[in-house]
Amino acid sequence: MTVKFAILGAGRIGRVHAAAVNAVPGAALVAIAEPLPAAAEAIRAAYGCEIRSIAAIAASTDVDAVVICTPTDTHADLIEQFVVAGKAVFCEKPVDLSLARVAACLRAVDAAGGLLMVGFNRRFDPDFMAVKAAIDAGRVGAVEMVTITSRDPGAPPPDYITRSGGIFRDMTIHDFDMARWLLGEEVETVFAAASVLTDPVIATLGDFDSVNVILRTATGKQAIITNTRRASYGYDQRIEVLGSLGMVSAENQAENRVTIADRDGYHSAPLLNFFMSRYTAAYANEIAAFVACVAEGAPTPTTGRDGLMALGLAEAALRSVAEARAVRLSEVL
Amino acid sequence: MTVKFAILGAGRIGRVHAAAVNAVPGAALVAIAEPLPAAAEAIRAAYGCEIRSIAAIAASTDVDAVVICTPTDTHADLIEQFVVAGKAVFCEKPVDLSLARVAACLRAVDAAGGLLMVGFNRRFDPDFMAVKAAIDAGRVGAVEMVTITSRDPGAPPPDYITRSGGIFRDMTIHDFDMARWLLGEEVETVFAAASVLTDPVIATLGDFDSVNVILRTATGKQAIITNTRRASYGYDQRIEVLGSLGMVSAENQAENRVTIADRDGYHSAPLLNFFMSRYTAAYANEIAAFVACVAEGAPTPTTGRDGLMALGLAEAALRSVAEARAVRLSEVL
Amino acid sequence: MTVKFAILGAGRIGRVHAAAVNAVPGAALVAIAEPLPAAAEAIRAAYGCEIRSIAAIAASTDVDAVVICTPTDTHADLIEQFVVAGKAVFCEKPVDLSLARVAACLRAVDAAGGLLMVGFNRRFDPDFMAVKAAIDAGRVGAVEMVTITSRDPGAPPPDYITRSGGIFRDMTIHDFDMARWLLGEEVETVFAAASVLTDPVIATLGDFDSVNVILRTATGKQAIITNTRRASYGYDQRIEVLGSLGMVSAENQAENRVTIADRDGYHSAPLLNFFMSRYTAAYANEIAAFVACVAEGAPTPTTGRDGLMALGLAEAALRSVAEARAVRLSEVL
Amino acid sequence: MTVKFAILGAGRIGRVHAAAVNAVPGAALVAIAEPLPAAAEAIRAAYGCEIRSIAAIAASTDVDAVVICTPTDTHADLIEQFVVAGKAVFCEKPVDLSLARVAACLRAVDAAGGLLMVGFNRRFDPDFMAVKAAIDAGRVGAVEMVTITSRDPGAPPPDYITRSGGIFRDMTIHDFDMARWLLGEEVETVFAAASVLTDPVIATLGDFDSVNVILRTATGKQAIITNTRRASYGYDQRIEVLGSLGMVSAENQAENRVTIADRDGYHSAPLLNFFMSRYTAAYANEIAAFVACVAEGAPTPTTGRDGLMALGLAEAALRSVAEARAVRLSEVL
Repeated sequence: MTVKFAILGAGRIGRVHAAAVNAVPGAALVAIAEPLPAAAEAIRAAYGCEIRSIAAIAASTDVDAVVICTPTDTHADLIEQFVVAGKAVFCEKPVDLSLARVAACLRAVDAAGGLLMVGFNRRFDPDFMAVKAAIDAGRVGAVEMVTITSRDPGAPPPDYITRSGGIFRDMTIHDFDMARWLLGEEVETVFAAASVLTDPVIATLGDFDSVNVILRTATGKQAIITNTRRASYGYDQRIEVLGSLGMVSAENQAENRVTIADRDGYHSAPLLNFFMSRYTAAYANEIAAFVACVAEGAPTPTTGRDGLMALGLAEAALRSVAEARAVRLSEVL
Repeated sequence: MTVKFAILGAGRIGRVHAAAVNAVPGAALVAIAEPLPAAAEAIRAAYGCEIRSIAAIAASTDVDAVVICTPTDTHADLIEQFVVAGKAVFCEKPVDLSLARVAACLRAVDAAGGLLMVGFNRRFDPDFMAVKAAIDAGRVGAVEMVTITSRDPGAPPPDYITRSGGIFRDMTIHDFDMARWLLGEEVETVFAAASVLTDPVIATLGDFDSVNVILRTATGKQAIITNTRRASYGYDQRIEVLGSLGMVSAENQAENRVTIADRDGYHSAPLLNFFMSRYTAAYANEIAAFVACVAEGAPTPTTGRDGLMALGLAEAALRSVAEARAVRLSEVL
Repeated sequence: MTVKFAILGAGRIGRVHAAAVNAVPGAALVAIAEPLPAAAEAIRAAYGCEIRSIAAIAASTDVDAVVICTPTDTHADLIEQFVVAGKAVFCEKPVDLSLARVAACLRAVDAAGGLLMVGFNRRFDPDFMAVKAAIDAGRVGAVEMVTITSRDPGAPPPDYITRSGGIFRDMTIHDFDMARWLLGEEVETVFAAASVLTDPVIATLGDFDSVNVILRTATGKQAIITNTRRASYGYDQRIEVLGSLGMVSAENQAENRVTIADRDGYHSAPLLNFFMSRYTAAYANEIAAFVACVAEGAPTPTTGRDGLMALGLAEAALRSVAEARAVRLSEVL
Repeated sequence: MTVKFAILGAGRIGRVHAAAVNAVPGAALVAIAEPLPAAAEAIRAAYGCEIRSIAAIAASTDVDAVVICTPTDTHADLIEQFVVAGKAVFCEKPVDLSLARVAACLRAVDAAGGLLMVGFNRRFDPDFMAVKAAIDAGRVGAVEMVTITSRDPGAPPPDYITRSGGIFRDMTIHDFDMARWLLGEEVETVFAAASVLTDPVIATLGDFDSVNVILRTATGKQAIITNTRRASYGYDQRIEVLGSLGMVSAENQAENRVTIADRDGYHSAPLLNFFMSRYTAAYANEIAAFVACVAEGAPTPTTGRDGLMALGLAEAALRSVAEARAVRLSEVL
């Protein structure tokens, strides 16, 4: 069976997913919906698919699944529209910036018996998958402490920050999901500390650029997340999991594996500087996993509930910063 | 000038300092005080010094400086006795487990015009000194985030925990000092999360074995500390400092630099497993620095106030755990 | 302009090049020639090209360039046939196992004014390109010593060894080309030592599995090459260039970047085990470079002469082993 | 039993051994012989030993063992004098620059039933010992290929080169010994290539600064040695042993374990720059091993024959360079 796809939105991430769908065996790109004609045409020309309206795609009998890559404030409505239309739905995170709206959307998905996968691409990174596999294989014993270092090379433009919901909802949210995945338990309490250290403009937007978070589960397992918007040496993405029998960790990806030694010492390349080059394989694996779920009618590896939980942790982190105390997830969710 | 030394206490750390004093040019070990005859004799035989009582040492005209390696509950009294006796004093941390007692002791030192150095050996580790030198040379710009990973290979015996004041006062206290040193600013607020994950006996003693701490200064710089009593792969001591222009970090010391590659992959040695082998150079450098201060009448690089501040941070961390909130250092100090 | 391609031969390397041609912007795969119907059909189905005979491709007006992936003993004839037919030719190494036949073929290419690129894929590996760029940028000063470690994970089947011309002509030949490229001078003398250590069958075929070679240029620059047919830990491909001002080196590629630390030490993944996964990017870059040359009518970065010189070094190495002496390249070429 | 030592020669290496003797439990430094009064006095003052003439030491009943650190051309005579005098002898390599003189000296030692250890310090380096232990434990199976990278930070002064016998006899000789030790078999043939690339003065002295050597045993095991007198990035000392089941390797020692990451990439310290700081532990272990042999009357781990064989390999390498052919060790020895 070939899963026939439409993509909603031909922006940066839409183009990534179009390439992924095209490359996955068992998937075919049938249609693209995009208000900008040039962007739509570029996808059509590259992959030979049709340009259709969103309504037409919802009504198309030759479309099995959609990938939602439109602006965040349209996600929940589109999810509801397409599960009702009987399409399998892959939606970029977040489902919505409002916890209540996300919860309502998930209820609608359930009511429709829909298949929804929320895009947490990092779970599909080959190195992080190897970390998880090592944990699941018992290589480090019982998980005790997770350390996530997650640093962007540079801050996004101010208007992105305004729309994104801020650092916890657009950046730390990935790390919240990774922490839940690696801890293997739900988080009970959240403590976050936040500062503006790289650019005072960020403070005027009510956001932060430098944050540390401690997560704690009911059994006492803990995760720490350290984020900054500006790491001069590249896109720093490291994970470390301490267990009762050992530690498993994943290192960064540099631009190359070349070292120069001279009288000043040893010098090697900075890190890959962009999330798309760093997570190329993850995006491909993610869509392949979705295709397999649609083809088999199987549950998706990242669910609407995963989206809800990560957003709840972001909400709790914001409250923790405001009130300088540990916040229980049950206070917000 | 040769600085003539007496050492008070011939236990594990006393023997380390005796060797260090013996090895430092410009220092001579003159006397040892130790209630266990065999332990005292071992030092005497090894270094050719005399065995004397503490009172005799205080009265000795051939002793310029003492190194206090006795049990913690004697430290403050001995410091006071020896500064009054006109001796330069090096005291193992902590000065006392009570903040009030430490503060009183430091006032006595000041009143006597005494020279006191508190032993925070890690500041004298060659790698950590290189980290600090890089910061001071502006290599990473303005410091923003400090990450300290500090894990012991195994928990101390229960009776040590009972006497030590618990993990924050005996283990994290080193990391509190490192954080202050590397941040270059005083900490304003402390948040700590603590669990017992390695051995339930530790819970019955009212202590923890797995803790994470976030420290924040008034300007928003932050440090995170992650501790465990049990790292199966050895004594894990890493530091990472993110600044506006880059990051500087210090790696661990393994048992050797040998790697074996086979069909299962690449394999290298575990970390040095004991604080004395890991910090051999640090202990020697620490005593050398003290000798230089005594010889030159210069201020010591680690002071009684450093001891007080680190203990204050431990106190704040304990309150933070109890109250699940960020605690201002000014609440305890 | 789109460069229109035909591929001759749909074996393992033919499939690699078909995928590369398909992926390079500015190139299109028009035809495949392959005697095995199933193999030809697989390429046709995957890329939508036509199946044609070799003669038909030579006569095709819609084919600009061919990639020769047929057995070695057909290479020289096909090169001559296709340059006469006015096609740009990319040929897998070697052009032939006979130096005289290679030289005659290159004369025919010259006479026809043809464009010929010989496939030395390693020059297009991103890491090795970064090594070369560092040298060319003067980062290590004048090149003095090149060290090439090149080890296969396992020996090819005996019948491949019979046809390949042996280890120097099928394996070391890549390292000979790398050495010439990195030394930046022609080699004057060759010394080689050879043994059979992994499998006595190899000795019965008159070949070796473990060889070391020293190359020396007229100015005294040297390269050493160390080869084995069996490296249990994977496909070991390292390069190191010492210059008057420093050293530049390229490290291996492992299966992942994950490390597990436990009481036995630190453990990480073995190396990528197969030349196709190790050199995926190199194969793609190589074809892209060829496409650019064809489109611009520019000289190819790896030439027929490069193929001749590398084969000459292999010939000299064989004579060196036989006579236990340094052989001048001029003795064989 | 305490082994009572005299040291002959208070130059650079004499001081290293004096410190080592002083530090080894079970050894005592009794006397120093040295023609320069200031140098002798420095040793006397540091360790409290007596200054004696060589003749007086040979006649001393309170001296069990001597360490010969005098100029090379005195070694053989002194060894003979002291074994006849009944002293255990540790002699810095080489015993002599003449193979015949070395052989005669060894016969004299045997005739006297003397105990002689020749100083090949690298066998006592903790990392190289771990490599050897891994081999002996079967961790890499049967040894097949040894790769030794051995590069000095800078050339010695011209007059040293004049006296030392040249690069093969003063520098490569260490690597010849390591190769024999790691191969576990005697070398049958030697091929060497040599150039002058760093300083033309070296050519006027008849010596080389850049050499590569291939050693081959009768069973086909091989070792390659790559040497240069000038590695701008420090004292580069690496070993790699490939076996039938895997590879074991030892990495370099850098000045520290600190890395700085910035927009240009990752930067770490150069290598330790001096053989004495790089091999501090090796020198101490070497003397400790000698002390143990003297105390137990056991055979020494590095023997006069080891000195002879390494010098023979140097001689063969020189002939190989001169005649551009593989030289059998039996031709020179």
